[in-house]
Amino acid sequence: MNDIPLAIGIDFGGTSVKIGAVRGSEIIDRAPPIATQDFNNPEELIAAMVRAVEDLRSRHEGIIAIGIGMPGFVNFEKGIVFNLTNVRGWENIPLRDLLSKATGLPVAADNDANCMAFAEWKLGAGKGYNHLVCASLGTGVGGGIIMNGSMARGARFGAGEIGQTSIDYQGRRGHYGNLGALEDYIGNQEITRDALVAYQAAGISKDIEDCSPAALSEAARHGDAIAIERWNLIGRMLATSLMNACWLLNPEALVIGGGVARAGNLVFNPVREHLLKQLSGPFKHGLAILPAAFGHEAGTIGAAALALEAAKI
Amino acid sequence: MNDIPLAIGIDFGGTSVKIGAVRGSEIIDRAPPIATQDFNNPEELIAAMVRAVEDLRSRHEGIIAIGIGMPGFVNFEKGIVFNLTNVRGWENIPLRDLLSKATGLPVAADNDANCMAFAEWKLGAGKGYNHLVCASLGTGVGGGIIMNGSMARGARFGAGEIGQTSIDYQGRRGHYGNLGALEDYIGNQEITRDALVAYQAAGISKDIEDCSPAALSEAARHGDAIAIERWNLIGRMLATSLMNACWLLNPEALVIGGGVARAGNLVFNPVREHLLKQLSGPFKHGLAILPAAFGHEAGTIGAAALALEAAKI
Repeated sequence: MNDIPLAIGIDFGGTSVKIGAVRGSEIIDRAPPIATQDFNNPEELIAAMVRAVEDLRSRHEGIIAIGIGMPGFVNFEKGIVFNLTNVRGWENIPLRDLLSKATGLPVAADNDANCMAFAEWKLGAGKGYNHLVCASLGTGVGGGIIMNGSMARGARFGAGEIGQTSIDYQGRRGHYGNLGALEDYIGNQEITRDALVAYQAAGISKDIEDCSPAALSEAARHGDAIAIERWNLIGRMLATSLMNACWLLNPEALVIGGGVARAGNLVFNPVREHLLKQLSGPFKHGLAILPAAFGHEAGTIGAAALALEAAKI
Repeated sequence: MNDIPLAIGIDFGGTSVKIGAVRGSEIIDRAPPIATQDFNNPEELIAAMVRAVEDLRSRHEGIIAIGIGMPGFVNFEKGIVFNLTNVRGWENIPLRDLLSKATGLPVAADNDANCMAFAEWKLGAGKGYNHLVCASLGTGVGGGIIMNGSMARGARFGAGEIGQTSIDYQGRRGHYGNLGALEDYIGNQEITRDALVAYQAAGISKDIEDCSPAALSEAARHGDAIAIERWNLIGRMLATSLMNACWLLNPEALVIGGGVARAGNLVFNPVREHLLKQLSGPFKHGLAILPAAFGHEAGTIGAAALALEAAKI
């Protein structure tokens, strides 16, 4: 066990920054979470992260690399954060070099969805597959792609944005002006908003908290017809974007995680049904449709694993 | 010039099999086309292809490999044709080994859209790009993907089927039971059928031949409002599938070819407009949207190029 090297994994979220000491797929120790919005600029937040890293290093010998997953666009090769959707001031920050200089350790920085996909590919549900598509369902819908046994990052490190792919060319207008983006139907808040409308249309008065994915999941398990119908629709929409990824990439496996995926069979059953109904032989035969192995720790575990791989250890 | 090796390229279509001797991007000689449907079984058709190959070899010295593009699923690694959509009897045919045994030359067999993409990538509009998506617009809509500087074939050699990707999760039911497939809107015959309906709805009587992509292109150039509207819609639909490929793969370039692409700016302008309107920065900056360099010869040229690469010459 102890011959697996130790690395720091950092899961940088819009609300909090979670930092752990990671061995393989186990987080053996955690620093107290840092509140992202408490800091006025990247420098101060980076300094707080460095203090947390040094704290973990004082308790554990043999930490040899740091990985960090960011909620936005990152130039993985140069370790530069282009910009973050929900955190101000993070534009063109050479995060890798700043962290590396402050700690003396090799650092890898990537998009958070890529970190999650990397965790699932190297250590989780997608282990052993050379052609893999991962989707993470939460407030946003992210993804990561493994092709020919390596991460597909594309020309500018943007690849894997399955949440932005369109399921309807005449659909809702999304964040980037794009029409019919999956995320604008099955993101956390959109699920809630649409469920509220569906209940209202049926003459049923509900509070917004009764319409969260968790509440809808509970309601569906108790036989609530509208909740069941919502999940079937969510599954069908998700299946469309996954199907498109299958036609383009012909993966061996799909790994689906994130908070919304906790609905389990409520969402996996319609996804499976619609994929098998809509894909042809070479695309569906042997296609594994798998729940993610890691929950909210995937980002931390994946960032650490990525750091070790990047450091070629 | 003569230090570029010579190879045979075979473009196996549902109507005819075209065979040429190819040097680089030039077809220096052609065998008479073989009528695909004149043969009762694969063995006889393969024998006819072998005779044509030997005929070309008798006229040209130094032919060192054969490449063949097939209209259906091919196991590229093993050179086996799984099945062809429009040609009977072609199921699990070990085409590569049969052709190789009969000719004594190394043979590569692949899907025809992959051959076209390979021609554009190695010798045509996509030359020099490491991340490339090609689409070919004809009776069917095919495609090929280059990621990280190599062909993306996926787990079972099916990758690149952009024509089957959905632009509407509630859309038309296609060949495989899939809903809203791009091909079911912008395939040759679908363009024609929809245009006929659009003219009828406007109270204008048209013959079916006035509604072919070529006729619609001509009409639009003369200011026909309905024809212009059709091309805008075709461009918008195509842009949706290309956009989805961009979100997933973040390519540097898109290459668009095939008969329908001959409409030129009528289709390229709306494609560009909708892509630039719907993609975010890292996906659209520097994205090249290019017409294919090769027309109907792309398959032959690509098959020959692929054969040389596969033979590692």
